[in-house]
Amino acid sequence: VEENRHLSLALAAIAEIDFRKINFFSIGNGARINQRETSPSYTPSSDITIASKLARIVLPSSHRPPPVTALQPWYEPGDCWCAAPAEGSLGLAQLSVSLGKKMLPRQVTIEHLPKQASVDIKSAPKAVELWVPVTVDQVEGAPNCEAGPDGYVCLGSFTYDIHGPVHVQTVNLDAEVTVPVDKALVRVKSNWGAEHTCIYRVRLHGDLVDGNDDVE
Amino acid sequence: VEENRHLSLALAAIAEIDFRKINFFSIGNGARINQRETSPSYTPSSDITIASKLARIVLPSSHRPPPVTALQPWYEPGDCWCAAPAEGSLGLAQLSVSLGKKMLPRQVTIEHLPKQASVDIKSAPKAVELWVPVTVDQVEGAPNCEAGPDGYVCLGSFTYDIHGPVHVQTVNLDAEVTVPVDKALVRVKSNWGAEHTCIYRVRLHGDLVDGNDDVE
Amino acid sequence: VEENRHLSLALAAIAEIDFRKINFFSIGNGARINQRETSPSYTPSSDITIASKLARIVLPSSHRPPPVTALQPWYEPGDCWCAAPAEGSLGLAQLSVSLGKKMLPRQVTIEHLPKQASVDIKSAPKAVELWVPVTVDQVEGAPNCEAGPDGYVCLGSFTYDIHGPVHVQTVNLDAEVTVPVDKALVRVKSNWGAEHTCIYRVRLHGDLVDGNDDVE
Ligand SMILES: [K+]
Ligand SMILES: [K+]
Ligand SMILES: [K+]
Repeated sequence: VEENRHLSLALAAIAEIDFRKINFFSIGNGARINQRETSPSYTPSSDITIASKLARIVLPSSHRPPPVTALQPWYEPGDCWCAAPAEGSLGLAQLSVSLGKKMLPRQVTIEHLPKQASVDIKSAPKAVELWVPVTVDQVEGAPNCEAGPDGYVCLGSFTYDIHGPVHVQTVNLDAEVTVPVDKALVRVKSNWGAEHTCIYRVRLHGDLVDGNDDVE
Repeated sequence: VEENRHLSLALAAIAEIDFRKINFFSIGNGARINQRETSPSYTPSSDITIASKLARIVLPSSHRPPPVTALQPWYEPGDCWCAAPAEGSLGLAQLSVSLGKKMLPRQVTIEHLPKQASVDIKSAPKAVELWVPVTVDQVEGAPNCEAGPDGYVCLGSFTYDIHGPVHVQTVNLDAEVTVPVDKALVRVKSNWGAEHTCIYRVRLHGDLVDGNDDVE
Repeated sequence: VEENRHLSLALAAIAEIDFRKINFFSIGNGARINQRETSPSYTPSSDITIASKLARIVLPSSHRPPPVTALQPWYEPGDCWCAAPAEGSLGLAQLSVSLGKKMLPRQVTIEHLPKQASVDIKSAPKAVELWVPVTVDQVEGAPNCEAGPDGYVCLGSFTYDIHGPVHVQTVNLDAEVTVPVDKALVRVKSNWGAEHTCIYRVRLHGDLVDGNDDVE
């Protein structure tokens, strides 16, 4: 019964995000990856069977999804972008996204394959931050973030919880901008124990500048 | 609570259409677009950022989905067919579909990205009509339609309501045919204020001639 | 009301399988088709309209999905693998799958387009068996299966019921292995009356060897 309630919560959460919130990280809304500010992608190094190793040689592209995968819908295990393990300023995984519309960020949604359906849940993100290219005086609020890149200000720090009842997790940002933005960075600062980090999907919600207000 | 009820209604409506009704406009059921009787497709003219303009040059195909898109599933903003603004006999958007099976039309389903998740809801269809290639004496009922193409009779006129609680809207046709058809036209006569019109999906339901009745 | 209950059951069943069970037949989990032990694919011989016959000439690939289709998600009529009618040891349809992970099989899920949404429900599977490459003394339990291939032991025999309330049907296997496997055969022994058999999706569930137990 508790389990059924959790499944209903998950379906309702997904429907609410799909049907009730603009996703400014959607390709269809004009979002694009900035490769230059995005972590390199991970190439898996091992599988258990010879058949799957041969398959990888024949179908190499299916084993290294590009960063844009993190902006697209997912349906199956592996429909995710994995960042290569890296040292330095990009953290475990950094995703830089140019938006197609000017907007005011309010919420972020992180999605991952549920723990019970996953064979490698340790690569899920844990601590995540959102940064935007504004100045400190264009932000109201004081999120508790780690050091970040020059030219960006942090709007929120939050945790993706693999043990949560719903695997699609939306959080409110800690700070607000006073000017619209058309770019954002997602920075993963920790994961659940793997040497690489995978993102099934990340969405950015907020207020559209020049919206639908005059529809009758 | 009211909002949750609306989301549950939406999920139930989608499941009912997916699981309980034959869609004669499905490619898998043999449906095909008749290009000659279908409106030309729209090419968007502007986006806000330079990045998205460059992306369009690199990926032009992603910006002009063909008419068959209106018969296929959608998951994201932009998974729709948009008709070019046009004058003359095709109206705002006309879609001509050859069916893979002979059938008796009963209902039409129109789908669009929900208003709250959309950055340009004005391009949604408003007044829609369904026409089939029969003679007037092969139709029972008198729908209130505008003028239409030679060789076709109107079976129904209805409104897609962007303010409705559910964004997947199924309507009963106003008239019935006395002979099976294997072709239909969807004609959009008005939209919600844009200069072009987009269709996320249209489905045709009804009775299959030569069906599954003898399954044990 | 009864119908709404059935739709809710279907949505809950799908969510439970997608969100709560590892699918060892998922491509993303390393599963691959063994072509050599898999039935040849079916090529449909007729459609009703000339337009659809022409379309098949232009788009032949869309009309003969390969066996891997039976391991992938489906959304529409035709998103299935159909086996060619055959005589001999493969039965109506045999699908051989190499797994990407070593595991202990517990359950199988069979999916098909619901009867009410289908134009040819007779090609759905009816009697289905699961076989794995172990010896008889590595199996506990005695399923009631037909004769099978050398080198394999049957773990379960079950029926896919097209009249059931939910079209996604999960069954417990009748027997358990005492050693992990990394390969399995799905064998369809009968269908609902067609001369060929189609599988929308089959999933294999069970216990992962070397799992997520140490996640904190
Ligand atoms: K994805
Ligand atoms: K579509
Ligand atoms: K499939």
